[in-house]
Amino acid sequence: MSSSVMRKLDVVSPVPADIDIANSVQPVHIDEIAKSLNLTPNHYDLYGKYKAKVLLSVLDDLKESKNGYYVVVGGITPTPLGEGKSTTTVGLCQALGAFLDKKVVTCVRQPSQGPTFGIKGGAAGGGYSQVIPMDEFNLHLTGDIHAITAANNLLAAAIDARIFHESTQSDKALFNRLCPANKEGKRSFNDVMFRRLNKLAISKTNPDDLTPEEVTKFARLDIDPDSITWRRVMDINDRFLRKISVGQGPDEKGMVRETAFDISVASEIMAVLALTTSLADMRERLGKMVIGNSKSGDPVTADDLGVGGALTVLMKDTINPTLMQTLEGTPVFVHAGPFANIAHGNSSIVADKIALKLVGPGGFVVTEAGFGSDIGTEKFMNIKCRYSGLSPQCAIIVATIRALKMHGGGPAVVAGRPLDHAYLNENVALVEAGCVNLARHIINSKLYGSNVIVAINKFSTDTEAELNAVRKAALDAGAFDAVVCSHHAHGGKGAVDLGIAVQKACENATQPLKFLYPLDIGIKEKIEAIAKSYGASGVDYSEQAEKKIEMYTKQGFSGLPICMAKTQYSFSDNAAAKGAPTGFVLPIRDVRASIGAGFIYPLVGTMSTMPGLPTRPCFYDIDIDTTTGKVIGLS
Amino acid sequence: MSSSVMRKLDVVSPVPADIDIANSVQPVHIDEIAKSLNLTPNHYDLYGKYKAKVLLSVLDDLKESKNGYYVVVGGITPTPLGEGKSTTTVGLCQALGAFLDKKVVTCVRQPSQGPTFGIKGGAAGGGYSQVIPMDEFNLHLTGDIHAITAANNLLAAAIDARIFHESTQSDKALFNRLCPANKEGKRSFNDVMFRRLNKLAISKTNPDDLTPEEVTKFARLDIDPDSITWRRVMDINDRFLRKISVGQGPDEKGMVRETAFDISVASEIMAVLALTTSLADMRERLGKMVIGNSKSGDPVTADDLGVGGALTVLMKDTINPTLMQTLEGTPVFVHAGPFANIAHGNSSIVADKIALKLVGPGGFVVTEAGFGSDIGTEKFMNIKCRYSGLSPQCAIIVATIRALKMHGGGPAVVAGRPLDHAYLNENVALVEAGCVNLARHIINSKLYGSNVIVAINKFSTDTEAELNAVRKAALDAGAFDAVVCSHHAHGGKGAVDLGIAVQKACENATQPLKFLYPLDIGIKEKIEAIAKSYGASGVDYSEQAEKKIEMYTKQGFSGLPICMAKTQYSFSDNAAAKGAPTGFVLPIRDVRASIGAGFIYPLVGTMSTMPGLPTRPCFYDIDIDTTTGKVIGLS
Repeated sequence: MSSSVMRKLDVVSPVPADIDIANSVQPVHIDEIAKSLNLTPNHYDLYGKYKAKVLLSVLDDLKESKNGYYVVVGGITPTPLGEGKSTTTVGLCQALGAFLDKKVVTCVRQPSQGPTFGIKGGAAGGGYSQVIPMDEFNLHLTGDIHAITAANNLLAAAIDARIFHESTQSDKALFNRLCPANKEGKRSFNDVMFRRLNKLAISKTNPDDLTPEEVTKFARLDIDPDSITWRRVMDINDRFLRKISVGQGPDEKGMVRETAFDISVASEIMAVLALTTSLADMRERLGKMVIGNSKSGDPVTADDLGVGGALTVLMKDTINPTLMQTLEGTPVFVHAGPFANIAHGNSSIVADKIALKLVGPGGFVVTEAGFGSDIGTEKFMNIKCRYSGLSPQCAIIVATIRALKMHGGGPAVVAGRPLDHAYLNENVALVEAGCVNLARHIINSKLYGSNVIVAINKFSTDTEAELNAVRKAALDAGAFDAVVCSHHAHGGKGAVDLGIAVQKACENATQPLKFLYPLDIGIKEKIEAIAKSYGASGVDYSEQAEKKIEMYTKQGFSGLPICMAKTQYSFSDNAAAKGAPTGFVLPIRDVRASIGAGFIYPLVGTMSTMPGLPTRPCFYDIDIDTTTGKVIGLS
Repeated sequence: MSSSVMRKLDVVSPVPADIDIANSVQPVHIDEIAKSLNLTPNHYDLYGKYKAKVLLSVLDDLKESKNGYYVVVGGITPTPLGEGKSTTTVGLCQALGAFLDKKVVTCVRQPSQGPTFGIKGGAAGGGYSQVIPMDEFNLHLTGDIHAITAANNLLAAAIDARIFHESTQSDKALFNRLCPANKEGKRSFNDVMFRRLNKLAISKTNPDDLTPEEVTKFARLDIDPDSITWRRVMDINDRFLRKISVGQGPDEKGMVRETAFDISVASEIMAVLALTTSLADMRERLGKMVIGNSKSGDPVTADDLGVGGALTVLMKDTINPTLMQTLEGTPVFVHAGPFANIAHGNSSIVADKIALKLVGPGGFVVTEAGFGSDIGTEKFMNIKCRYSGLSPQCAIIVATIRALKMHGGGPAVVAGRPLDHAYLNENVALVEAGCVNLARHIINSKLYGSNVIVAINKFSTDTEAELNAVRKAALDAGAFDAVVCSHHAHGGKGAVDLGIAVQKACENATQPLKFLYPLDIGIKEKIEAIAKSYGASGVDYSEQAEKKIEMYTKQGFSGLPICMAKTQYSFSDNAAAKGAPTGFVLPIRDVRASIGAGFIYPLVGTMSTMPGLPTRPCFYDIDIDTTTGKVIGLS
């Protein structure tokens, strides 16, 4: 049975603006979409008429069910214009659900709200392959990012407040405030305090039994202000918050500190949400998040600050994925949207798990991995699948003639500038030369054991000869198949061939998931395994990076997977090195860690975690039609 | 027909903790509550099972319906422990709906989420008179405060980004970026730009027709950084953000500026939400918000920055009030929660308007006004009702024996310290002496023309003689009635007498609403009218206040109502002056304005707009039961 509610698209050529297409289709009530997945009303909470949160408890109800096929969508190294990975993800699902009569769920990331008002528009796909309603997708959705902002900033406030209070109180006074006597004069530890006691290897349960040394160890976190890595966040492009000083008020007694805001989706809590597997697991991860070190070099966690439980309470509803729909009425899970450089850039494990049960055997879950497959697919396999225990049958690599020409030596592609004629006229040689990039992505993706399919996202200027060159190169490099698709112009109908190929790839999948590296080797060895997959001949560590690797190893975190923070515009650290560079030495500038989320992230270059607003931000065009309540000008 | 779904409470004595009572009652699905108000599913959007947003469009459907009775709940000057105004508001509605068979809607403010994790617990009433589910009420609710945070901070980011871009560009370059030529080389103004052109009295519609002087006027806002009153906000108790420096990053080229964060509910946008009457009105108010002045002293608005439309888009769903329920199944609207000092401290006009139509003739809408009636009820009448056009039939003043004893000369009441024995044993003389405070609240409230009822919120330690003393004093001062109630201990059953008295007061209401001052007098005359109602013999303006009054008058804002930012702990500016002080001179330290919300707010003393966290914040006790998903430790 199909999981589409079968809405027929009236396709127009040339393709209208995304917002016009999105507004031309009346979405069905989300109850209908839920029903198509055999969900009953007790399985989900409505958020208006077109969004619902599917409750994690569905997994308990379906624990006897078998999973469907699991498909991950990556891409070749993109141009700054993007090569249509989201669009292909959505289009493929529209094909599977609305044309091939398969049960299917699309799993995508929730976009940050900030950029919607800045330079770039939304991220709901494009053309006739979109998630709707577009304004709800791009704006508050069901509040998950707002909850992340609140939780992240509660922890930040707790850090500075604790340092402040410790600075003015004796150990004894601190302890008495943390464990006050009740009316009967009795003191007690509460749950979160036992976590700290445990960590300190203090097994006493009565506060009055602690020795003065134990009182000090327990009550004084002694946070080293210079070691604090936890920053505040905001889901706004606010460049003036990139570097700030806090604590300048007279009441804060001169405890001024330099810090910064990141955009909310860069919060470790977003990565926790994406990688968690249950409410209990989320509680543990949130409590384990490290915010900095004590002056003696021990990691200080959210639970040490007593706030891990409260963070989980703020986050409790976010664990339920948001159900939406495509233009052709197939179901979509929108859930989590971590950065793809300082985090792993994939939507949530929880959404994929629920979706796999809901579609069941013979059904398909298609999930997108951010950036090119050197980053997105690599992290999908080595981080996300490692934590979820799931393995994909098929890995898709989205390619465009435009990007391949760039890799073949075409002139630079710059956002906002007209394309060079090389990109608008047939040039088979340029395409062929660029296929080295595609070939490496195929070879790397095959290493994990899934069948690899190349989806060629066709533009109107592409020629048959160019498309054939890509197909040939893809098959030569070991792709299971390479398929031209036109879902942007035609919706699901334009991706039917891709759908058929994906089905075949899944049905023929045999190999189990293999990782690029085991967890029980050193941090450097893991970094080097990934660097090798980029084509690097070696790795160069800065002094700072060396120090941090040593520190994390000493702190007992070396068993975590690695999440490389690298440019998406090249296999190497140099965004200008197109094609398939080799022989370069990958520089590691610094190494950081998201202990709660569960990965170490080496920085290859500088990553911006707070965008800005241009002179004329897109908010100039955004308004509301106050008679209909409809949003206008969103793109 | 009753608007209660008739849930019988099993009342236990002594009264258990609020959270235990709240958790002991299984709320009904919010569909049931909606149905009890004759709402059909197209009138509201569900947000889970126990919350719904009732759509503003209901007002169109009900425009032929007549309003019910309108009751405002204020209080005497409180102790720091609070005198149970919210509890009385909820208890009265439980009585009217569940025992007196009336249609009733309770309208309350949404609390800030920040303090939930700080010192004070939630704000959903107490004992057997509460709004449930309590955790949803106190946490994200339906995202309105998060939307306010986002909108507030988008405007803040727009201000700094604009100053930055103006600092590096010529007038011509700025103009070219604001009105870029399209592919055909044509430029155009968009909607929000026409608002600015209008303000500048430039009637041209073609950008190319502007003179160089007009280009400069249009494109260069020339914001004076020292004049900026717009701050960023966060719904967290984060004391280290009370004074900060932003723009310290190298990319911001040294444009460092001192500013601050307020807690989100202090945002002018919250006050706009509370005072708006329609989506179109909200669009106008958001666009008119003044963020500071140009260097030549002209006010700069959100629409001058091009962002008024985008702010409205972020706020569009917030205009729909959230429907919840009391412990006894009567309907509640939770909507907007502006500060009661720097703003007007009342829930929304929109919620009250919808509620009045829904209950219809013979039904009751009970709405709470923050702080004592010198502040809450005064602002309800002179600001909220002035903008809404509504007038109440009955004004309630909540009093406690405890607070009256304090006003009569009892020892200081301090939160967290045991009460003096004067408050626990009979002392009729102290109560009688304190009734001067109650009397002034009655006399002041009567000035507006509604019948005044005193609700005596009874504690277990109160004696018959004490209660009788209050009743007598209240009637002597002109109250319509004075009723002892025990809704905290008994739920609606404990407020039945109050309900009957309120019904009588409403049925006998005759006088139209009279304001304390007209709008068309000067700012100072309005301030003086309010000061007189406090018992002041005069007003003393600081130099700064004088300057600001002159500036706002010159800018054309003197016709707005006045919103006094004064302590709630005394009629005067001195929190220690209990009872009914007279003959004091009210000092006005500064004068500020919320032009979009629509009021001028003089500062009587210093108002804190960002709370902090103590050494042991309540988040230590808050956690989640990961097997049931239930929140624990919330108070």
